[in-house]
Amino acid sequence: MTDSFLAETTALLERTPRVVRELLGGLPEAWLETPDTADGWTPRDVVGHLISAELDDWIPRAEMIMRDGTSRAFEPFDRFQHVERDRDVPLSALIDRFEQLRGQQLARLTELIDEGDLDRVGRHPELGEVTMRQLLATWAVHDLDHIAQIYAALAGSHDKAVGPWRAYLGILLRRHQV
Amino acid sequence: MTDSFLAETTALLERTPRVVRELLGGLPEAWLETPDTADGWTPRDVVGHLISAELDDWIPRAEMIMRDGTSRAFEPFDRFQHVERDRDVPLSALIDRFEQLRGQQLARLTELIDEGDLDRVGRHPELGEVTMRQLLATWAVHDLDHIAQIYAALAGSHDKAVGPWRAYLGILLRRHQV
Repeated sequence: MTDSFLAETTALLERTPRVVRELLGGLPEAWLETPDTADGWTPRDVVGHLISAELDDWIPRAEMIMRDGTSRAFEPFDRFQHVERDRDVPLSALIDRFEQLRGQQLARLTELIDEGDLDRVGRHPELGEVTMRQLLATWAVHDLDHIAQIYAALAGSHDKAVGPWRAYLGILLRRHQV
Repeated sequence: MTDSFLAETTALLERTPRVVRELLGGLPEAWLETPDTADGWTPRDVVGHLISAELDDWIPRAEMIMRDGTSRAFEPFDRFQHVERDRDVPLSALIDRFEQLRGQQLARLTELIDEGDLDRVGRHPELGEVTMRQLLATWAVHDLDHIAQIYAALAGSHDKAVGPWRAYLGILLRRHQV
């Protein structure tokens, strides 16, 4: 049996907070202090950004598609709001917050839409017309993109420690190519 | 308190099988069938490769450093042995196998070395002299590199589904730059 698009996408979205907890919860500080690239983000920044997107991006935009269609463009999304907001929040509290919000937003998604709404269209301020299906796929791939960024940051913390093996580790080589 | 290098490295290594299970266990097939790049690996291939490295790479090399020092070069490591070996093995069985092997190899590491052995030196067939500390850091960063590869493969399965948002998703753009 093939899963429906909604079930398949939700299956990915619901596991992201669990993966973040298994990966980062209780991890020694030595792994956590390095950004993914010179001007990039630490794992803490990434979790903060995922929190921001739960608050302001995915579900608010899904609601706009249902309510306004293409008549009104989505609000632009502030990629840096976590910097001030989360300055003094410990990583463990950020992980809790992300998990709680993701649960709430997936519950909201279930109330809001079903498979029949996936071809509804909204308007992105820069990209133009986009479908509900594209929005939900992007929600999931945005998770993947940013968790991969956490991996690059973790690896970067041990860039020197691997010595000559660095030449074989693409995740380290790519940090300096961006 | 600062963790010792061994404790800090083990903390990363022991969580990788749990992360792989949370991420891939029971994930719908639609996410799992695409390689990270055109000639790359699916998530299944990556787990197979991690199994190979547990069997033939990290602990066998740590044992050679303890036993032979620089007098004998490490055996070259076959990066593709999983292809035939795992052809008919379901992903869930590969995850179980990886978890079991990682547990065994970390137990073996504890028997084999302590902090005082980290500056011991061995000989890599291509890279020359390497330390035990570099070998263990590389074990951990190799995990990170390949789990990031799983993320690229998962994202790749939804390359088309995100529509115009693709332009903002580095994890998709990079798949075609390699």
